[in-house]
Amino acid sequence: MDHGIGTHLPRAGGICVIMAGGRGTRFWPLSRTRLPKQLLPLVGGRSLLRETYERVAPLAGPGRILVITGADLAEAVRAELPELPADHVVGEPIGRNTAPCAVLGAGLAARLDPDAPFALLPADHLIPDAEAFRTQLAVAFARAAAVATVVTLGIVPDRPETGYGYLETGADAATDGFRRGLAFVEKPDLATAAGYVAGGRHFWNGGIFVWNPSCFAAAAAAHLPRVAALLAPAVAAHGTDGFAAALESGYRDCPAESIDYAVMERLDGFEVLPAAFRWSDLGSWDAWGDLAAPLEGGNRGEADLVAIDADGNVVRAAGKLVALVGVRDLVVVDTPDALLVCRKADAQRIKDIIARLEGAGRRDLL
Amino acid sequence: MDHGIGTHLPRAGGICVIMAGGRGTRFWPLSRTRLPKQLLPLVGGRSLLRETYERVAPLAGPGRILVITGADLAEAVRAELPELPADHVVGEPIGRNTAPCAVLGAGLAARLDPDAPFALLPADHLIPDAEAFRTQLAVAFARAAAVATVVTLGIVPDRPETGYGYLETGADAATDGFRRGLAFVEKPDLATAAGYVAGGRHFWNGGIFVWNPSCFAAAAAAHLPRVAALLAPAVAAHGTDGFAAALESGYRDCPAESIDYAVMERLDGFEVLPAAFRWSDLGSWDAWGDLAAPLEGGNRGEADLVAIDADGNVVRAAGKLVALVGVRDLVVVDTPDALLVCRKADAQRIKDIIARLEGAGRRDLL
Repeated sequence: MDHGIGTHLPRAGGICVIMAGGRGTRFWPLSRTRLPKQLLPLVGGRSLLRETYERVAPLAGPGRILVITGADLAEAVRAELPELPADHVVGEPIGRNTAPCAVLGAGLAARLDPDAPFALLPADHLIPDAEAFRTQLAVAFARAAAVATVVTLGIVPDRPETGYGYLETGADAATDGFRRGLAFVEKPDLATAAGYVAGGRHFWNGGIFVWNPSCFAAAAAAHLPRVAALLAPAVAAHGTDGFAAALESGYRDCPAESIDYAVMERLDGFEVLPAAFRWSDLGSWDAWGDLAAPLEGGNRGEADLVAIDADGNVVRAAGKLVALVGVRDLVVVDTPDALLVCRKADAQRIKDIIARLEGAGRRDLL
Repeated sequence: MDHGIGTHLPRAGGICVIMAGGRGTRFWPLSRTRLPKQLLPLVGGRSLLRETYERVAPLAGPGRILVITGADLAEAVRAELPELPADHVVGEPIGRNTAPCAVLGAGLAARLDPDAPFALLPADHLIPDAEAFRTQLAVAFARAAAVATVVTLGIVPDRPETGYGYLETGADAATDGFRRGLAFVEKPDLATAAGYVAGGRHFWNGGIFVWNPSCFAAAAAAHLPRVAALLAPAVAAHGTDGFAAALESGYRDCPAESIDYAVMERLDGFEVLPAAFRWSDLGSWDAWGDLAAPLEGGNRGEADLVAIDADGNVVRAAGKLVALVGVRDLVVVDTPDALLVCRKADAQRIKDIIARLEGAGRRDLL
């Protein structure tokens, strides 16, 4: 694999729209409804949102970064990113999946600069190699500016992961590092995923898209005409007193649709720039542990730990000692009002806890 | 087994000396130097010391109960047992094992009533059947009053426990429910312990002794003359301003000796009354869990618990939810400044944590 893919190409800036609306339950009990994953201090005391912002800021500049989040999180996002103009953080009044968010982001980007390419970026992924990411994002911006297309940065798979969607690309050679995208593929079974990894034509869909603005407008007009029409008044009112009401009104009638289903899977074509940077969606405490600091005895995390014949554990606790004796491959996360002790292999079952708490009306713990 | 052993015999009252000096680390992190096992709310929110006191109070009366503890715990013991006259709680200025404590207790008991039998009782054992215990204690008091002897309430073993000392009794039939004690036996190996259980002549030494006062005085004079002489001034000064200084002076020169080694194992004879009550020394979190309330999913303890595919765990936490996923046979104990997650089978290794904390000078956690 060429880790310098695209690095010799022309570069350009563009507008960055950070989609920070995720709820997520996989980091419970640290994550809560009012403190979702992207706002947690998961990376050396800093949030993934802050990391995402700082990763793109040198390329975009604060005046050309927008963040779209839930209305109830907007103040927390503004506090996390005080450099941003307040109206560059937009709170969706109702969650309507990703299509309205993308349409709104594209519209607001066009208000800033109708000719600039723009990127739609998840707020809650980990990309430690910021410089490598920026280099490729700049290449993708240049490509999207030059050609009426959408470029997605495809993550090179290092394992037959069955939890992600894949981007299928053509068998023909890459042009200037870009591969011809053929299809968005749903989460595969293990055998299929293994074939993808071996074949070299499939990439993980990390949700990083760089659009030519007229290309997006055409796609939205073709595949999301109602959403586009409903949100047009809000886009037009951005920066005025009428924005909130227009947004509320537009979202109220929007259908909940995924941008992947509604638009991406129906595109005539797209381009894939294979990522030359490390990437993790930090989808679980286990994944967080893989990247967290080593603790004594072969454990990882952030904690004041004493380990007696205990290894392979992921531990997160603040303000107290954690003593582990004789246990392995556990996730231990302590917070002031909830403690999780979970087998690593069962990390995805945290959602069962959430379901139980919801069923019991224990909103204080959600 | 006759659960009514001795219940038809004459009964009498006596003086109760509760030995509450234990330090213990096996209930860390709930237990601390300043809050040892006997003061912890381990039994339905009440302490074992309080339980011990209430178990004997109807028989002895508060004026004939003495508690001997460490000087640094005396105030906490007085707060736990406000019914006791303040000078009935005596704080040992230095820990010198159990022999000085027993000699002091016997001396103070004799000051209260030189002719009354007295019991030496551990403060940190669990005996749920208080009435059955009192009945047998009254029978033992009557026996010790009638015969110049020491009676020990032997715990009928229900398993080949290798962690306790045993009382060996003669093969001859019991007289009035009392068996002739032959020897104090050290902790046996498993095969030996299994033989003890099968043979029916061995009982666990639960440390519950009822003495005829002149018999104790003779034993102390024979086997602990120096300790008896050193502590005589303090005994004589009890209730006066000179008590603390006399106690300090006496203890300073006392050797550290165990009453079991120094006296009990050298006795010419003793009597064993097989206990007709349930007993546990609550020697670990695991043992506590066996007796604690059932929690959901086959777990036990005191906690607000959500268990997802988790059973056999012992959990203790206050003021927070504990969520267990996919784990079994763990001990999970949360406190404000320390959290323990330990395999049940490793419960005895908690002492290794203590050693580590001591080595690191973390006194705040001890």
